[in-house]
This record gives sequence, structure tokens and C-alpha cells, in this order.
Amino acid sequence: MGIAPTVEAVVAAGGAHIPPLMQALDQRLSELAAGHGAVLARHGGATIAAGGKRLRPLLVFVAAGDAAGRGVLRAGVAVELVHSATLVHDDVLDAAELRRGRPTVVASAGRGIATATGDLLFSRAFAEITANGRADEVRVLSAASSALARGELLQRADAFDPEVTIERYLERCEYKTARLFEGACELGALEASASAEQVASLGVFGRRIGLAFQLLDDVLDVSGPVERTGKARGTDLLDGTVTLPLILAREEDPELAELDLRELGTPDRAAAVCDRIAATGALREAKERALKIVAEAKRELPALPERQRKALDLVADGVVERYA
Amino acid sequence: MGIAPTVEAVVAAGGAHIPPLMQALDQRLSELAAGHGAVLARHGGATIAAGGKRLRPLLVFVAAGDAAGRGVLRAGVAVELVHSATLVHDDVLDAAELRRGRPTVVASAGRGIATATGDLLFSRAFAEITANGRADEVRVLSAASSALARGELLQRADAFDPEVTIERYLERCEYKTARLFEGACELGALEASASAEQVASLGVFGRRIGLAFQLLDDVLDVSGPVERTGKARGTDLLDGTVTLPLILAREEDPELAELDLRELGTPDRAAAVCDRIAATGALREAKERALKIVAEAKRELPALPERQRKALDLVADGVVERYA
Repeated sequence: MGIAPTVEAVVAAGGAHIPPLMQALDQRLSELAAGHGAVLARHGGATIAAGGKRLRPLLVFVAAGDAAGRGVLRAGVAVELVHSATLVHDDVLDAAELRRGRPTVVASAGRGIATATGDLLFSRAFAEITANGRADEVRVLSAASSALARGELLQRADAFDPEVTIERYLERCEYKTARLFEGACELGALEASASAEQVASLGVFGRRIGLAFQLLDDVLDVSGPVERTGKARGTDLLDGTVTLPLILAREEDPELAELDLRELGTPDRAAAVCDRIAATGALREAKERALKIVAEAKRELPALPERQRKALDLVADGVVERYA
Repeated sequence: MGIAPTVEAVVAAGGAHIPPLMQALDQRLSELAAGHGAVLARHGGATIAAGGKRLRPLLVFVAAGDAAGRGVLRAGVAVELVHSATLVHDDVLDAAELRRGRPTVVASAGRGIATATGDLLFSRAFAEITANGRADEVRVLSAASSALARGELLQRADAFDPEVTIERYLERCEYKTARLFEGACELGALEASASAEQVASLGVFGRRIGLAFQLLDDVLDVSGPVERTGKARGTDLLDGTVTLPLILAREEDPELAELDLRELGTPDRAAAVCDRIAATGALREAKERALKIVAEAKRELPALPERQRKALDLVADGVVERYA
């Protein structure tokens, strides 16, 4: 949805070694879906093999520069598996029916199988990264996946809480999204045998665009359109998830400041609240914040080969363009 | 519940280095519960810090023989964290109210927080083992945790299925329980720098007593008594989980062979079915199978220092005695 052209552009800019990596990624994910029992093949396959943007593995590959061995591939696979595991678990919690246009694991197989499927994808991610034989890479992956879980915990703990501050919101985004982007870039850099300094710099780049990605995703939940997001406007609001647009809008609109999300109830009411949020200018402000973060990420990229820099710029732009 | 005296016996037999390890284990688990955000501290703490038998870490420590450094401790912590993660997720699926006499995470905080808590415990397990800097240990842990998830998948896929065979049941037990016991022993042996052959032999030992443990656990679900198990008889039956006692009993009692677990409905009906199963002698047969497996595990232990062998024997006996 939207980022595919970017992938092509990145692939074109990043070098001839990227398309085979992306292809090998899909193949490996299909193998994993097929190779761990009939139950995973039937239910997990849809989630991990059905596509999606593959943005995180792409970051691994681009951060790895010209390096393109089995190790780079495994790192990309591991990152995508962690991401898929959290998607499967999120769908359990939200009792979601569709994901990427297909029935979710929880919808087709029930909560029990969906929870175990997520756990299995999680475990396979670590098996995959471990095959690289590098403790530093396992450490990066476990830090990222701990952060993800911690972000989920924060989100659930803060649900329906009208007091969520911008700082708390940003902290949640860091955990929930930015850290895995950071980890993806670090893994790529580690596989390219980059210096510790470069690994850290590329990590910061990933973290920033991950943060921007989440901010823009939260804008999209309020702005729609539905044809683009594949879900009703205000889905986060109905779940009680307080995001930046609402936090900013509350400062401008006293009625929003009084709003109790628990009483929202219907999608229609949620859409009306989205309109009110948009009327305050909060969406524009949130989007500007995200664009600033992306610009900063690009500006502070370390010295890199021109081609790699260009590819990273394109990934950063892709995160933004999706929402242009 | 029941195995604590064994721990003391093992401690007495296994050497003076075991009690400090068990104590350090509890302390480290408490630190982890406290050190990853307020939400985990509030909800995860109960599950990981509240005790439990600590049987898997004990296996790590005993399999490590006289080795007792930070690495051995970390391996024990990692194994217990993986086990705790699956408990938290199991409780989500079963909507369980109590675990180890305390409210479950899902009961006190809801499904969302419980799922994320399990994920976090999982991630921390890998962070812990990674700190040992040994790819072989990470590999053992990821194999064991993949197996666990796969076992859960099998169990859910087979729920309410009257056709479950003994082979299929044993396969599920291998995945769901035996592999983590195997991993615990392998991790201990690896930390003790045992030969590849000894690592494998100790792994087989762990796997066998893990299998016996699960068989006996399934007997206990049918036999009770409630005061000992802390849950109603026939809980597995109500969940649709077909275990060895029922499989064996079906061959003897045509009425049980016709039973549709979906129609069981009430705890009273479940208890009545438990009585019917017991009347066929299936519990005795299942128990005998388990005892045979334990005896085999002990008999085929590799050549080890006398003290270590004694301690391993005691752990094996402990698994059995719990059900004597």
C-alpha cells in the first residue's frame, strides 16, 4: 500500500544486489511458513508470506550497503519475523478480521492458534539471527523485540487515559516502532562490518524514520481516506489509543479536551471526532513534526558511499510520501 | 507444590554451589520484573517472581555440575523466562484466574497487557542468554522455544479431536514440554564445557524426564485430588485437550470412545468422565509408562561425577514423586 514504488526506486538506486535479496527474503519467509508444521503453514503463512511492505528488511539491506550475503538476508528475515509476530499478536488483541486484505490468523483459527503462531514466529526470528553466529546481532534483535513488547505494554496501560502527554506518546512510539527500525539499520551495518560509530549513526537514522513513520501512521488513522488505510477512520480512538493528533487538538478545542474515549462507542462518532481533530490543524502540525524528523534523519546521515546514501534518502522519502 | 523437598534434596546432594544459584535466580528474576517499566513490574512480577517450582533452572544448574558462574545463572534465568512467557500466554488463552495461587496477568490486567507481557518475557529470555556470548546457547534456547510454540499449535489444532493417536499425543508432549527440559540440560552442559557427546546425552536425559513430567501432569488432571493440583479434575477435558489417559481409556470403554468433548459442558460432567477413565485402569498404565521413561532416563545417563549423577537422579525422582 503506497510504499511499493519506493521499494522499486530504492532497488534501482541501491544497486543490483537488492532485487535478489528481496526475492530471497520472500522465498525464505515462505519456506519458514511451510517448514514448521501444518498448523503454521495453514495459518501463519498468510501473515508472513502474503507480503506487506517489507520496509524493515529493506532497511537492513540498504543499511548493509554493498554487502549482500546470507547474513544480510537472515537479518532481514529475522526483522520481518519479529514484525510479523507482533502483527499476529496485535490482531489477537484487536480481534481484527483482515490484515493485508486477508483473513487474520485469529479470524481464521482462533485466539489460541494465533497466540502460539506469534510465539513461533518470534522464536524463529531468533533462530534465524542466531545462524549468523554473532552475539552482537542477537543482542540488537532482542533489544528491539523487548522494546516492541514494552511499547505494547505502554499502549495498553495508557488506553483511554486523557492525561497522556506528548512526551509519553513519543516514548511509546520509540518503543513500539522506532526501535525495530533502529535495529534493522544496525543489523545491516553490522553485517557490512561498519565501524561502531557508523552502526550507531545508522541506528539513529532508522530510529528517526521509524518515529516519523509512526507519527504519520497515527495521522492517517484520523485523516483517512479509508480506501488508502484499509480501516475506518478513528480506529485508534475506538481502541482508546491516544495519539499525537488528539493530544495536540485537545489544546485547541475544549470539547475534545473533555472527551472520554470510553464513551465514543460507534464508528460514526469516531469519524466525527476525527473531523473535529482535523479542524484544529492538529493533523498538519503532527505531519510537520514527522517531516522535520525525517529531514533531520537524512541530514545527519554519516558519510556513506553516494549510492547507499541515495537509497537511504529514498527510503526516508518513501515513509513520507505514503502520506503526501 | 510438591517438588520443593526435591530441590532441597538436590541441593544437598548436588553441592554447596546450588543454593546460591537458586537464590541468585530469584533475585535476578525479581530485578527483571522490576527493571522493564512500571507495567511489567505491576503485572509480570507476580508471574515470574512469585516462585513456582523452578524445576527447569534447577536442571540447568545440576547439568552444569560444578560449574557455577554468571553464565550458568543466565542460562537458568533464560529458561525460566521462556517458561514464564508461555504460562502468561496460556493463561490468556484459558482466561485463567489464578496461577500459583495469585491472580494471573490476564485476570488482573486484561488480555492486551498479558499478551505483551509474555512477549516481553520472551524477549528478555533471549537478551539474557545472549549475554553469555555463545551462539550455540542461543540456538538451544530458540530451538526449545520454537518447539514450545509448535506444541501449543498442535494442542490447539487437535482440540476436541477424537482421533488423536498416542503417537500424536507423544509428539505434542515432546514439543510442548520435553524440548525445554532438554534445552535446560544442554545449556547446563554447554556452560560446563562438556563434550558434544555429553551435551547430547544430558539433553536426552532432560527430554525424557520432561516427557514423563507431562505424562504425569496429564494423569494428575484426571486423578486429582484438587487440593494437590489446585484446579478442578478434568480441566484438560473441558478445554478439549485429549491426553494419554483418555486415549488409553477409549480402547477399553466404548462409551468413552463415543464421547464428544464439546458436549461435556460442566465440571461435574468432566469429573464423572474422569471417574470412568480411572475405572479402565488407564491412569495406572499412563503412570507406568512415565515411570519407565524416567527409569530409562536415569539408566542411560552418561558417565558423570558421582555427586552430579546423584543430583540428576534426584531430580528425576522428584518428577515422579510429585505423583506418588
